[in-house]
Amino acid sequence: MSSTHTIAHEIRNDFGVPFTHRLLFDRDVLNPENPLLDSIFGREDDDTPRSGLIAVVDQGLAEAQPGLEESITRRFAGSDLPELREVLLVPGGEACKNDPAIIERILAAIERHRIDRRSYVAIFGGGAVLDAAGFAASTAHRGVRVVRFASTVLAQLDAAIGVKNGVNRFKKKNFVGTFDVPVAVICDESMLESLDVRHWREGFSEAVKIACLQDAAFFNSISDVADLIRERDLDAARPIIRRCAQMHLEHIASGGDPFERLEARPLDFGHWSAHRLESMTDFELSHGEAVAIGICLDSAYSHLGGRLDQAEFERIIDLVKRLGLPISHPLLVDDRLIAGLEEFREHLGGRLTITLLDEIGRGVDVNDVDLDRVRESISVLGSLAG
Amino acid sequence: MSSTHTIAHEIRNDFGVPFTHRLLFDRDVLNPENPLLDSIFGREDDDTPRSGLIAVVDQGLAEAQPGLEESITRRFAGSDLPELREVLLVPGGEACKNDPAIIERILAAIERHRIDRRSYVAIFGGGAVLDAAGFAASTAHRGVRVVRFASTVLAQLDAAIGVKNGVNRFKKKNFVGTFDVPVAVICDESMLESLDVRHWREGFSEAVKIACLQDAAFFNSISDVADLIRERDLDAARPIIRRCAQMHLEHIASGGDPFERLEARPLDFGHWSAHRLESMTDFELSHGEAVAIGICLDSAYSHLGGRLDQAEFERIIDLVKRLGLPISHPLLVDDRLIAGLEEFREHLGGRLTITLLDEIGRGVDVNDVDLDRVRESISVLGSLAG
Repeated sequence: MSSTHTIAHEIRNDFGVPFTHRLLFDRDVLNPENPLLDSIFGREDDDTPRSGLIAVVDQGLAEAQPGLEESITRRFAGSDLPELREVLLVPGGEACKNDPAIIERILAAIERHRIDRRSYVAIFGGGAVLDAAGFAASTAHRGVRVVRFASTVLAQLDAAIGVKNGVNRFKKKNFVGTFDVPVAVICDESMLESLDVRHWREGFSEAVKIACLQDAAFFNSISDVADLIRERDLDAARPIIRRCAQMHLEHIASGGDPFERLEARPLDFGHWSAHRLESMTDFELSHGEAVAIGICLDSAYSHLGGRLDQAEFERIIDLVKRLGLPISHPLLVDDRLIAGLEEFREHLGGRLTITLLDEIGRGVDVNDVDLDRVRESISVLGSLAG
Repeated sequence: MSSTHTIAHEIRNDFGVPFTHRLLFDRDVLNPENPLLDSIFGREDDDTPRSGLIAVVDQGLAEAQPGLEESITRRFAGSDLPELREVLLVPGGEACKNDPAIIERILAAIERHRIDRRSYVAIFGGGAVLDAAGFAASTAHRGVRVVRFASTVLAQLDAAIGVKNGVNRFKKKNFVGTFDVPVAVICDESMLESLDVRHWREGFSEAVKIACLQDAAFFNSISDVADLIRERDLDAARPIIRRCAQMHLEHIASGGDPFERLEARPLDFGHWSAHRLESMTDFELSHGEAVAIGICLDSAYSHLGGRLDQAEFERIIDLVKRLGLPISHPLLVDDRLIAGLEEFREHLGGRLTITLLDEIGRGVDVNDVDLDRVRESISVLGSLAG
């Protein structure tokens, strides 16, 4: 080594950044008699000036629940809660993640209403609106406080629970985003009452996914009430939603790597094909429906590869069907599906890793995909869907 | 409480996100014989595909060091380091933080060259380029790997060390940004050799700041070599730069709140007026020069308020002068200066808190500002500047 290198010097620091995540289940949280919001937004001490708040509301939700905007305004008015400065309506669904102008609108509102790091952006909506508005809020002043009000089954048991947000760019899903921890995630079951039946049912595919991967007893619990869930029985669905949300949160909080910095994450079970199917159908297929198909595909692949036995494979197909969810789709045979594998690997980085099932409740990561077996799995599903 | 509230249920999780920060000092790191980059970019294991890299280079740096692009290309070619896929030149200084098109260019390059979370964006430049390119990289795929090559004194002892990045929006400095931890920060002293004398000197104002706040012995060390530093003596400057960078990093890593989530941060000593002066002079005044003036202003204010004694106040003014830095500016008397206080408070959130000096080495936070005393301090500086 040359003499110039004797001056080299390294200082290395390992440190942790502390976060608190609160997940709250209740109903009618906007009812002025319900004290739940006081525990979230209450003033820290009397010296602090009253902070501000803007609400970003999923237009689809606002239309389905016509009194919502008024309820929000009433709940925050004349209270010790932050001062509500504007309610912004934004289009729901994937549209809001595809349109950069929506991010700009939210940033401009944050600036206009002087929302600072002690102030709030309250987001009411499904996963897509939570993702897009959460991304804007997480970059303004390097992150203002976010409270997520999850308004769909899918959001309450999965999408709203995590620490991610993001928007689509270059026609790639979630190409741009951040990891950020909301102050609180509020799952108000009264918001689920206005969901149409498709958007009610689709959420439960994420519960099937996590049960398949981690918990055979939970799979049985879902199976026990699948017919009631299909018919929108909230009492039957409530424990499934809460258990799924909790499992999801525990995975993030105790997995040791919530911001996915250390390990290359495997492609989520059922999701490599699901993301691709969504975009191939121009989002005609909803995320939860696509995941239901993706679960069936990865289960068939696990079965044909000698991992998952016939009986367990059939139980998974049967559960998905009983929940009123699709198990196949005509576009599965389109070659663009397979091309999605590489796009997904690139988003996650590192080697290609997909998750399969050894049995219900036990997922396993593998590093290669046999494309012929994928095609065989697709034709098995086609015949089962009949 | 009404019966509906009996269903309320909360799940709370406190968790930490682990980060590693590496700060490396050396010279000629792009020399193929220097092994330093191997320790940063080396392949994790042989199974992993070779990752990719794009370099973002400060145009001012590239012009001052004509061989730089070629050196970068040569260092990464034919090695076990990541594959260099493009070198992007971007304008340096505040211009690059004011132009959203630069963020778009960097994101597009990340997409075009398939830079994933296991791949790298290497940024060569001063604080502004590190901030802007770092922001783009921290949002692509929710964060690809960033290695910062700090090319100015200011960056090596302060700006590059932290965990922040950001760009200006709505004419507000750093309105949009993220907290993100680079894989490594590399301070190559050979990159300082092409700095003009103004940009050499300005960096040391941040060393004076941190010494005033925390460490009287460090203040004495700077004072001992101030005349040599003014004349660009690298051997005299080296220990000052390294000590300052280390203090900065320790503050971030061991302060317990690196992402500034828990506490409202006080306005940094000397900085409330500095940020404002920069924009009021259309960035004619550099950041470090503005900080030098801001330090003198907050010191005068501390002295006039009965905190800092006359002798210590004079030592600070004398040190700033000996470093070849300004102590005052004609625009200090402009009313827009004071208006900047509120804008700064809003960026940080919470109550207005500024930091003053009780003595050299001991900062103190206070919550109110006497505007008449600010004006008096300004006229004291005016007369001292002569």
